[in-house]
Amino acid sequence: MNGFHDEDALVKEIARHFLPGRGRKLRLGIGDDAALWKPHPGFETVLTSDWFLEGSHFLRETHPADSVGWKCLARAASDIAAMGGTPRCFLLNLALPSTHTGRWLDEFLGGLRRASKFLGCSLAGGDTTRQNRILINVTVVGEVVEGRAVLRSGARPDDLLFVSGRLGEAELGLQELRRSRGKVIANNAALRKHLYPKPQIRLGRWLAENRLASAMMDISDGLSTDLARMCEASGVGAVIAEGCLPGPKGLPAAKGTRLALHGGDDYELLFTVPKSRIRKLKRSLRNSPIEYVGVITKKRKILLVKGAGVAEELVPGGWDPFRQKSR
Amino acid sequence: MNGFHDEDALVKEIARHFLPGRGRKLRLGIGDDAALWKPHPGFETVLTSDWFLEGSHFLRETHPADSVGWKCLARAASDIAAMGGTPRCFLLNLALPSTHTGRWLDEFLGGLRRASKFLGCSLAGGDTTRQNRILINVTVVGEVVEGRAVLRSGARPDDLLFVSGRLGEAELGLQELRRSRGKVIANNAALRKHLYPKPQIRLGRWLAENRLASAMMDISDGLSTDLARMCEASGVGAVIAEGCLPGPKGLPAAKGTRLALHGGDDYELLFTVPKSRIRKLKRSLRNSPIEYVGVITKKRKILLVKGAGVAEELVPGGWDPFRQKSR
Repeated sequence: MNGFHDEDALVKEIARHFLPGRGRKLRLGIGDDAALWKPHPGFETVLTSDWFLEGSHFLRETHPADSVGWKCLARAASDIAAMGGTPRCFLLNLALPSTHTGRWLDEFLGGLRRASKFLGCSLAGGDTTRQNRILINVTVVGEVVEGRAVLRSGARPDDLLFVSGRLGEAELGLQELRRSRGKVIANNAALRKHLYPKPQIRLGRWLAENRLASAMMDISDGLSTDLARMCEASGVGAVIAEGCLPGPKGLPAAKGTRLALHGGDDYELLFTVPKSRIRKLKRSLRNSPIEYVGVITKKRKILLVKGAGVAEELVPGGWDPFRQKSR
Repeated sequence: MNGFHDEDALVKEIARHFLPGRGRKLRLGIGDDAALWKPHPGFETVLTSDWFLEGSHFLRETHPADSVGWKCLARAASDIAAMGGTPRCFLLNLALPSTHTGRWLDEFLGGLRRASKFLGCSLAGGDTTRQNRILINVTVVGEVVEGRAVLRSGARPDDLLFVSGRLGEAELGLQELRRSRGKVIANNAALRKHLYPKPQIRLGRWLAENRLASAMMDISDGLSTDLARMCEASGVGAVIAEGCLPGPKGLPAAKGTRLALHGGDDYELLFTVPKSRIRKLKRSLRNSPIEYVGVITKKRKILLVKGAGVAEELVPGGWDPFRQKSR
């Protein structure tokens, strides 16, 4: 593959990398003015879009092209998981420099195809154009059992607060990637999580379909920032315990806590469970990777208990593009 | 409004400009991880995304912010019209420089809101971030009567070829805008069409629901380019007549023809009608702005008849970002 002379050839190359767009209720995929899709009976459609931009969300020289392909879809699909839904199809919007329509594109589409297969989410369409920088926007369309979607706004005082997975691993992985100057170290869990995050589709759907979670969202910008968003949407506060935070393994406590509180890009789930549902949650979970981290309060503040009765207010310190923190 | 310090404040400002997201089957709008939506019974979902990028699709200093807002939604909605569908909701993906979160954003959202109202298409969500350039991607979600969507691939030999509206007006408007150096001349039809295009939603839906069109697409990149796409998708060719092309009014013939063939950004419809359906089409149309331009052929070439029996092959000469034509 040696680059393209026109947009139509690029669209064909993208389509070639993917299975025929039909199936999974996708009536018509890439290549027409628009795609056709229908949720299963008894389901409603879940819609989300995410930017994935060179310089803001990934670095052209540092991040492997196949990670860019995997991650642009995985992170958008994580928003579907956060509603308790299942991703079904996606629209890929891709703007590329002419220099990146050859090998880079091939590897990018390879990563995207693997994520698409892993998530059961078919390419439905999108738009391509040329730019000096690599710009990506992905829209994921999913479905959720009607009336069972879990919103951010449902947390109530005394609900218990949980997270899935280990928080801060992806941020640690980014630090390691920067240190290694782009050389990917195999079998490094943190790095893998930074490059190839796996959204918690199954857990989200299970929590929603069994009416276990009263509120849910994904942690994309760091626990301190995302918990503040959930509390604001629900009109509540929270108390979380430093000792309960599932940070990356094998780090000094202070560093682990900092990463777990403020590290972004984890795509784990943050959710609340009413006390009356805890028994059902526990009975079913067994080996599921979730951790209790705190409790929802009526008072609209977020407190971090640091042990021995010492608590301090937790200020959002995660990722925000308008606050100029770099990723 | 004086700019924003964080992304959440920007999202709230965007939401403030729009009616509450519910209604029209939008169960949940902007502000959560994802939006919830459902087509009416008997309809299926139509999905499309479009880039609208500074430097490629509009110029920061030349195009009024409210036109950028109007057009980014209108042109994506035109893809829904091209399937015979009705736009229902959209996701706005916006990347802005910090300098553009004040007055520019206000005017942009004003134009977007007017388009949203005109099209009956509610804001459902999206993503915001910061960039040096203004980047926009819009996903429009619509619905079409099940089984009635009109594809590009349905044109058959002997079908008659029609277009809506006047072709090349938007390109003429862009030329006038460039000459006027950004001063908008009121009551100029071509300029209005360039700045505030109105997609042919009603016509597209009517053609689809009455099974009149065998193939349909919107003309966004110029007739010569888009007709070639339709013919390729359908495995056919076409003969079009120069004398039938509805170019901009009041121009020298050669210039009018050139604009009608290759001018982009019109967002009119290109569609084919089987001969057996022509009577029904004519009976119902009366004052509708459609013009016969040619006929579909078995031979896979596109010929332009220039009068007096002179015909030449028509080469795509419209907009293609990868062929480096500037807009």
